[in-house]
Amino acid sequence: MQNIYTDLALEMAEQLSGGQGGSDSGIDGVEISVENNEVHDIKVTVVQITNDAGEAAMGKPRGNYITIESPEIMVNNVEAHEEIISILANKLAELTKGIKKSGGSTLVIGLGNRDVTPDALGPKVVSKVLVTRHIMESLPQELAGGLAPLCALAPGVMGTTGIETAEVVRGLVEHIKPALVICIDALAARKISRINQTIQLADTGISPGAGVGNKRMSLNQQSLGIPVIAIGVPTVTDVATFVNDAMDLFLSEMSESTPESLQDGAKFFDMLQKLEDRDKYAIIRNILQPYVGNMFVTPKEIGEVVGWLANIIANSINIATHEGISREDINRFMY
Amino acid sequence: MQNIYTDLALEMAEQLSGGQGGSDSGIDGVEISVENNEVHDIKVTVVQITNDAGEAAMGKPRGNYITIESPEIMVNNVEAHEEIISILANKLAELTKGIKKSGGSTLVIGLGNRDVTPDALGPKVVSKVLVTRHIMESLPQELAGGLAPLCALAPGVMGTTGIETAEVVRGLVEHIKPALVICIDALAARKISRINQTIQLADTGISPGAGVGNKRMSLNQQSLGIPVIAIGVPTVTDVATFVNDAMDLFLSEMSESTPESLQDGAKFFDMLQKLEDRDKYAIIRNILQPYVGNMFVTPKEIGEVVGWLANIIANSINIATHEGISREDINRFMY
Amino acid sequence: MQNIYTDLALEMAEQLSGGQGGSDSGIDGVEISVENNEVHDIKVTVVQITNDAGEAAMGKPRGNYITIESPEIMVNNVEAHEEIISILANKLAELTKGIKKSGGSTLVIGLGNRDVTPDALGPKVVSKVLVTRHIMESLPQELAGGLAPLCALAPGVMGTTGIETAEVVRGLVEHIKPALVICIDALAARKISRINQTIQLADTGISPGAGVGNKRMSLNQQSLGIPVIAIGVPTVTDVATFVNDAMDLFLSEMSESTPESLQDGAKFFDMLQKLEDRDKYAIIRNILQPYVGNMFVTPKEIGEVVGWLANIIANSINIATHEGISREDINRFMY
Amino acid sequence: MQNIYTDLALEMAEQLSGGQGGSDSGIDGVEISVENNEVHDIKVTVVQITNDAGEAAMGKPRGNYITIESPEIMVNNVEAHEEIISILANKLAELTKGIKKSGGSTLVIGLGNRDVTPDALGPKVVSKVLVTRHIMESLPQELAGGLAPLCALAPGVMGTTGIETAEVVRGLVEHIKPALVICIDALAARKISRINQTIQLADTGISPGAGVGNKRMSLNQQSLGIPVIAIGVPTVTDVATFVNDAMDLFLSEMSESTPESLQDGAKFFDMLQKLEDRDKYAIIRNILQPYVGNMFVTPKEIGEVVGWLANIIANSINIATHEGISREDINRFMY
Repeated sequence: MQNIYTDLALEMAEQLSGGQGGSDSGIDGVEISVENNEVHDIKVTVVQITNDAGEAAMGKPRGNYITIESPEIMVNNVEAHEEIISILANKLAELTKGIKKSGGSTLVIGLGNRDVTPDALGPKVVSKVLVTRHIMESLPQELAGGLAPLCALAPGVMGTTGIETAEVVRGLVEHIKPALVICIDALAARKISRINQTIQLADTGISPGAGVGNKRMSLNQQSLGIPVIAIGVPTVTDVATFVNDAMDLFLSEMSESTPESLQDGAKFFDMLQKLEDRDKYAIIRNILQPYVGNMFVTPKEIGEVVGWLANIIANSINIATHEGISREDINRFMY
Repeated sequence: MQNIYTDLALEMAEQLSGGQGGSDSGIDGVEISVENNEVHDIKVTVVQITNDAGEAAMGKPRGNYITIESPEIMVNNVEAHEEIISILANKLAELTKGIKKSGGSTLVIGLGNRDVTPDALGPKVVSKVLVTRHIMESLPQELAGGLAPLCALAPGVMGTTGIETAEVVRGLVEHIKPALVICIDALAARKISRINQTIQLADTGISPGAGVGNKRMSLNQQSLGIPVIAIGVPTVTDVATFVNDAMDLFLSEMSESTPESLQDGAKFFDMLQKLEDRDKYAIIRNILQPYVGNMFVTPKEIGEVVGWLANIIANSINIATHEGISREDINRFMY
Repeated sequence: MQNIYTDLALEMAEQLSGGQGGSDSGIDGVEISVENNEVHDIKVTVVQITNDAGEAAMGKPRGNYITIESPEIMVNNVEAHEEIISILANKLAELTKGIKKSGGSTLVIGLGNRDVTPDALGPKVVSKVLVTRHIMESLPQELAGGLAPLCALAPGVMGTTGIETAEVVRGLVEHIKPALVICIDALAARKISRINQTIQLADTGISPGAGVGNKRMSLNQQSLGIPVIAIGVPTVTDVATFVNDAMDLFLSEMSESTPESLQDGAKFFDMLQKLEDRDKYAIIRNILQPYVGNMFVTPKEIGEVVGWLANIIANSINIATHEGISREDINRFMY
Repeated sequence: MQNIYTDLALEMAEQLSGGQGGSDSGIDGVEISVENNEVHDIKVTVVQITNDAGEAAMGKPRGNYITIESPEIMVNNVEAHEEIISILANKLAELTKGIKKSGGSTLVIGLGNRDVTPDALGPKVVSKVLVTRHIMESLPQELAGGLAPLCALAPGVMGTTGIETAEVVRGLVEHIKPALVICIDALAARKISRINQTIQLADTGISPGAGVGNKRMSLNQQSLGIPVIAIGVPTVTDVATFVNDAMDLFLSEMSESTPESLQDGAKFFDMLQKLEDRDKYAIIRNILQPYVGNMFVTPKEIGEVVGWLANIIANSINIATHEGISREDINRFMY
């Protein structure tokens, strides 16, 4: 079976292993481990791509991809959100502990268009992290040890700035020489059920898949010269994905309810079912051309949920970065 | 052919007449006339339902339904918007000129949920009309003649207030005894191509179609005791409509590109094509049940377009209501 | 000394008692008790007006006025906010426990203009309470016991609707016959230092002080026929108050730094200092006439703080109203 | 008389010339010309600083400072706004016609904090200019001649990014090598009456006055190596200015209404009146220290007015930049 490209390493691994999940991926160069937090219905999956075979199979560079999944992200469940903040902060601290940060700042880049609600995740995170780079010298002694230099920028999207995001980021990295970049991005889900329920953390930066045809330049260690962490959340489905999933449901419904006599000579039905997923998706994308990219499918409560997601991610970054002071002090410092 | 219920009288008439359009509807009790403004690509259609047969065929009460269509509504074309304002203001003045307004206010009701961008049209119009009812007594002499008493309320939606909109409106109408109610509402389009391109003005109020199962109480002369004008614009498609339209495109594409040999015994294909529109739509709605009502399809630039639509409608109401003063003075009065 | 009218009973009591505070108000018919929560720097003051003398002295109707003060309200301190929610929910439950709610709804009215950030507190609370009145009949058995019928409306302000808020509320109360009304309102502080740091809860409804000249009709038991609880927070200072406070600071600064020789014959200076507060304020208001009511003074971070305040108040109302289910379930129910 | 620093060259010239106005500035090296458009109550003043003496007197670098003033900016007067767009576009075209733009882009920089309504002017302009730099190569032949390459960035403010704005801009200028930078900024007015009524256009970039103590690095030809145009609008008054103006009004009111007998020995009063403006302002700033920078004074309708201002400025930039195509086509291109 051919796979459909997805930004989530977890979805890719599920496709490759036929969806069984489990810790044995069965793929050379791909290791998977799963932890469940049952109190708050949180599942943490770590996918490690360790060699060339793994890279080829997954269509992604080697590195660590950590997925935190929970239906509680979508509801205003303060306790579950706190638990997720704690998990994400820990994982982020683990991924970055090897990076020598002394002397260099952490630069948070919030990708996306702040005027399109489901794409505003990155810019919202930027507005909620505790920036300190500009005040490190004037900090009182007792705080200087606890706070690390952090700065943040939401560079906008090329459609509204006329500038490649990577151009803005590179210029900035050359000027301020941070030790680490953390990029936040809203993704398009390949499954409706993932929308707003999944956070992916990866230490490989952002390298759009070759097959996607997206000429957006990469933001990764290779292009920027420093480590790049990516945090992504699927917040929309594009209309083609939605129609594709809906048609699959429709066909499976029809095949169950259609009398044998009709199915009998139903070569057309067979053909539909035998169409490779990728081909079917491509046909649908093609048919919907005027709408793909211009219209999107999103839940009604997207505004509120993006706010919670931004809160979760910004708090995690604050905790993992300013590790010498309490969370209460971080919050107090925000104003 | 069975028809699918739609809020737009124009769409209903098109279905009944097989889409030929033209001024001869061919339906007893339904008269149609069309005007084109070619400079700004604006089409105005007046559908009049004049007798019981027309009501039955159209599934709508007798009265006047005026549709203004233009692709220019979706772009920031100031001149075309001005032209549409002028047309809508005229039509509104015509529909209301018979109503004896002396002594009574015009009450504008902005239906919809202001926190969901494409549903915020009504509340946005409310915030842009020139309300005067509370200052009529303190107006300077030279303005008192030009301004008419106008008030406005956006009562919210039942899902967020716990109160039927009609309950709020009735209570208010009993208290302040207006002469006329104008309701503004965002609609769901049955065709993707209508989204944000069509404004419907009707003198029949809002009476949800029997078949829709929407138990929202009516806002019309019968329920409120005074004339009710409705202005509606389709700003979204529900996901079922979108998938339905996409599947039709898909099937028609496949039937052209599928070799004869496959189509030959394609009873299933035949069956799909022969499914009544209403049945197919019902099946899709059913399959997509968890998403219908919770997700919607909308253009990326919806925020900006709803702003323009609110501007067009509010200006038209201001001009038609405060007919004794210039538009410049109306604008100046807004602060 | 004459007092300046203020919406906060606490400020009025402080003025009357010369600012000493303490539990002995020294005023006939006014009893004051204070509790401090030192962990989160929260001070709770209960002012009870118990007889005619108290009403006359305070310029407010008899009843209970509970003030919760904390600088932590202004910062993103989740733990302190949780503590304040708990205190406010308890006090609200105490004030309403005598009201027989069986069969009748709680109606939350969010006063204020949602388009003016510091005035948007009431409308924001309305969007965050858990409304249930419309679904009470369809609730599953296990929830029906825990949830009470609640509905909510943000009626807008007269300047943008042309309708007295009290007219909308009365019409609604007559129609839906609630058992209790809770009004939320943003107030103007008389002291800059109170802005966004004080929540007042009172069981006397909203009855604008006679001296203020505000002809807005009352929302109280007398006018609506049912108990009315008011929750208010000062979120702005009007420019006259700000200038008044600033001039006092200026004069006191000048009197300290001005050489004796200049002060000696400074009858003018004496006169300034001897001006009754109320007179000085009136002069300033008069001088600033074109700006009073059209301009306001507010902290830069007002948008964020109003969000936190709405969160605190809405959660308190949810907990006090839906007392049979856990807070986690309340949150889960919001979508 | 010593002057108080102001961002507006016009205010500085008024101070120097004792407020008489008129075209003869009476200052060496400063030339002033005034045009009035009486239809829409628009006044255009051109201040030219032509030599060292002018620079010293005005505290500003030599160059052209064009001020467009109109009370109509504050109200929704479409016709007056169109007239102002036309004037501003013409002046901008004049200032930039000498700059050889072939091959190089225009880079629009929207300064300010988009989350603080009156400071959001710059970011709002960025979202309304027609960016083309990224699509110049794929434009159809007939448009390629009319559209010029334009790009735009809103870099945020140091308080929320931790990065000097000038650092971001310099990095970007080095990377994309534009031919011209246009900076948009919201200013603080020194007179309440200027708020939202004045647009200043200058070809000297942004060079904070030496006396202000603002260490923000300059954005001008010297620092960036290319011409820098600045467009600024005062949208707030800081609280110190407001109190200062209010106290002047108060003192003048008091001196008129105070009996001779009190004024007689009023050395203190004399002293107050003789305080240099700059000293009085400094004292007030000092007294109000905790509030200056954290609180601001602004009109209630600031949200709406900033929207109109952004519209005026963005349209002017679009017209002056994309001079080969009609304004209607520019608008159509926005989506």
